[in-house]
Amino acid sequence: MEPEQIRFLSELTAADAAARIEKGEITSVMLVEACLARIAERDETVMAWEHLDPDYALAQARAADARRAADPATGPLHGVPVGIKDIIDTSDYPTENGTPAHAGRQPGDDAVLVSALRDAGAIILGKTVTTELAVLHPNKTRHPGNPEHTPGGSSSGSAAAVADHMVPVAVGTQTGGSVIRPASFCGVYGLKPTHGLISRTGVLMQAPPLDTIGVFGRSLEDVGLIADCLTAYDPRDTWMRPRSRTRLREVALQDPPVDPVFAFVKSPPWDEFAEDVTKDAFSELAEALGEHCDEVDLPSAFDAGLTMQKIIHTADVAKFYGPILAKAPDVISKSLAERIVAGKDVSAVDYNMALDVREALYAGLEEVFERYDAILTPASPGPAPKGLETTGNPIFNALWTYLGVPCVTVPLLEADGMPFGVQLVGPRFDDARLLRNANWLTRHLAADEDGNDGKAGTD
Amino acid sequence: MEPEQIRFLSELTAADAAARIEKGEITSVMLVEACLARIAERDETVMAWEHLDPDYALAQARAADARRAADPATGPLHGVPVGIKDIIDTSDYPTENGTPAHAGRQPGDDAVLVSALRDAGAIILGKTVTTELAVLHPNKTRHPGNPEHTPGGSSSGSAAAVADHMVPVAVGTQTGGSVIRPASFCGVYGLKPTHGLISRTGVLMQAPPLDTIGVFGRSLEDVGLIADCLTAYDPRDTWMRPRSRTRLREVALQDPPVDPVFAFVKSPPWDEFAEDVTKDAFSELAEALGEHCDEVDLPSAFDAGLTMQKIIHTADVAKFYGPILAKAPDVISKSLAERIVAGKDVSAVDYNMALDVREALYAGLEEVFERYDAILTPASPGPAPKGLETTGNPIFNALWTYLGVPCVTVPLLEADGMPFGVQLVGPRFDDARLLRNANWLTRHLAADEDGNDGKAGTD
Repeated sequence: MEPEQIRFLSELTAADAAARIEKGEITSVMLVEACLARIAERDETVMAWEHLDPDYALAQARAADARRAADPATGPLHGVPVGIKDIIDTSDYPTENGTPAHAGRQPGDDAVLVSALRDAGAIILGKTVTTELAVLHPNKTRHPGNPEHTPGGSSSGSAAAVADHMVPVAVGTQTGGSVIRPASFCGVYGLKPTHGLISRTGVLMQAPPLDTIGVFGRSLEDVGLIADCLTAYDPRDTWMRPRSRTRLREVALQDPPVDPVFAFVKSPPWDEFAEDVTKDAFSELAEALGEHCDEVDLPSAFDAGLTMQKIIHTADVAKFYGPILAKAPDVISKSLAERIVAGKDVSAVDYNMALDVREALYAGLEEVFERYDAILTPASPGPAPKGLETTGNPIFNALWTYLGVPCVTVPLLEADGMPFGVQLVGPRFDDARLLRNANWLTRHLAADEDGNDGKAGTD
Repeated sequence: MEPEQIRFLSELTAADAAARIEKGEITSVMLVEACLARIAERDETVMAWEHLDPDYALAQARAADARRAADPATGPLHGVPVGIKDIIDTSDYPTENGTPAHAGRQPGDDAVLVSALRDAGAIILGKTVTTELAVLHPNKTRHPGNPEHTPGGSSSGSAAAVADHMVPVAVGTQTGGSVIRPASFCGVYGLKPTHGLISRTGVLMQAPPLDTIGVFGRSLEDVGLIADCLTAYDPRDTWMRPRSRTRLREVALQDPPVDPVFAFVKSPPWDEFAEDVTKDAFSELAEALGEHCDEVDLPSAFDAGLTMQKIIHTADVAKFYGPILAKAPDVISKSLAERIVAGKDVSAVDYNMALDVREALYAGLEEVFERYDAILTPASPGPAPKGLETTGNPIFNALWTYLGVPCVTVPLLEADGMPFGVQLVGPRFDDARLLRNANWLTRHLAADEDGNDGKAGTD
């Protein structure tokens, strides 16, 4: 394949690629070959992939092309490769959870979400690098724009692979800030849907009241497209409820009936943790939005939110990872081992109170959403920090994860050549309108620069 | 009203009374007057009622009769009085939760289950006595058959009122053994349905993973009838799931397609806690059942079940009642105060492990239910013990409450003139067949004594 063809194909969005495959303009094999070529060229630097078998990926692509030849009815991701975070079980690739303690672990079954992707026609390209057990301790992945910087975590490989055009879309998870933060750092779209919207059966459990499946893409349409494939009800995930199928992709592309108004919420960590470039960027953003944006202070009760998230997180890390530490103490990082030990001291009363408090806080948040269409807030303290010893700070994410609300990060900002995101937060289960408002925001700001009115379809 | 008419009416089952009201043979006013007359005669001794306003009860009955005169379409409990445990919110009667700390507490809303009863046409006759905050510390109610004995608890008044013909049916709750034990002691039918089958919105929370609404009646049909009225999905109770409406009453009256076989499970506390009369009675029962009963030993993993139930119970008592103790330390019993203090030390890891273990144990129980139709086991250590200082021991109930399985007690046994029950336990959400099997058991044993074949409709 010629370099320009590789480049053209590997830069396609999932929606565009699926449409071209459906029309017969390209094949899944061509698309997967281009992704593999990009990975061959770049992954020595980026190190986004933990398990990847090019022959097996191509065999899946050939089978997809053969199915399409036999039956033109294709799924929404027919022939499109997807990256899967290596804490999500796959029956054909190992799932090692980012720890030597699970080296060689081969699940017998696919996670429910992986089955759903296969049903949608997707190619499971490979498994992407995660931090140690999807907590903070970094793994090998580097920032695709500058390998001296972290890509963020814990969904490090998924974010970096999508950003570096190795794969159009990928799946990750967020318990603190593991989808929105790496998406922000890597300059891609990241969606952490409402807690309970996507099944976690077959995914490493870290803290069930917080663990949320999220997705990465290079367009809002793409994150809606892949998320739509994952939202079917799974009674084995007891946090899910039966509900009608989502239409995230469709709604994301619509014009809002009325222009949205955003609540610019600095959120508790702003003063101490937002970097100067972030403070400057958000003040410019608020100015550019004018009447579409008011600064809103959350009631002081929300100051406890981060503590509450930590109570749940720490106690559950002790519960789920305590047995791993007991069995393989030498291969667990010091920071995680300390967290596990600390988590054993959290009382059941405090844990269950933290669950109650979030419902009370969410009721307070609903009052904000009565007046505003979405909350506008940083996705990360700033761009990806230099160095590979940490994956950055999830402090602008943990409150929203705790509250179970949908979050999307839009790659609108940049400082010193490094991207970072604007996070929008919406009411629970209003994920579709959140994407629609994110799309409006993107178009409005582009129009502001270009001088046109920013309506969909005008460019 | 003549004494014989009072006696006739107050001894009617709910199903019979509702049918007669529907046909116009009796009125709701007549029925309620008879119940009130019985209460006036007996409650000085039994003390089953905490809040009861005869004029208000009669006003409800007159309104029910007027509705029926205007529209012959009646609900399944039209005009039938029901007793409600005083931890279940009622908008028209106080709800004091059995503690002076809540004296004078008047809810603004009905509990969801109370609304459901009103929709079914029921008369909320009054509130029945509960132990202190529905835990173990006794309140004023006495055993209707012998006032020197406890009626059991915590649903003391509901069990005693039904047993003493003060009301045909009543509602209670079980967190350890608070429905099955008092029903056993008082010689009535008690149903603790599957956890999650009946909404607990508006009911005092003690331990949400365990708290279960239960019902009392003087026939199996009646416990099915009233439970059927309560099983509509309530999304505010997050332990509920949408499911099709139950037909407990209908199925309870059917013949099983094949004669059931019971697993006689002595359960862990048998050796130490089952009284000699219980051991004798169950050995006779097993003999009478012959090929319809095998003794089955639960795997030793079940020995931990009572400890697990206690972990959840104690931690949640600390969470929900700790604030009450802090506010009103002088009016909380010593035993409850000690439990609250102890519960603060339960770790979140242990609590959440106890929730996981129950799913693992339940998987083991399902293997028993693959071979047997129901488990047959004592409902209480024996008949109601003498003395009013305790409400008896829930040790034959707590394992089943923890496992969330439906339990029914059938008043088949007696020792020294005091009744006690046989408990049947079924798979989760198989409540209807559990009642059908209980009905088969009753008929089979009666037929055994009478020498006929025990099929429904033959007597």
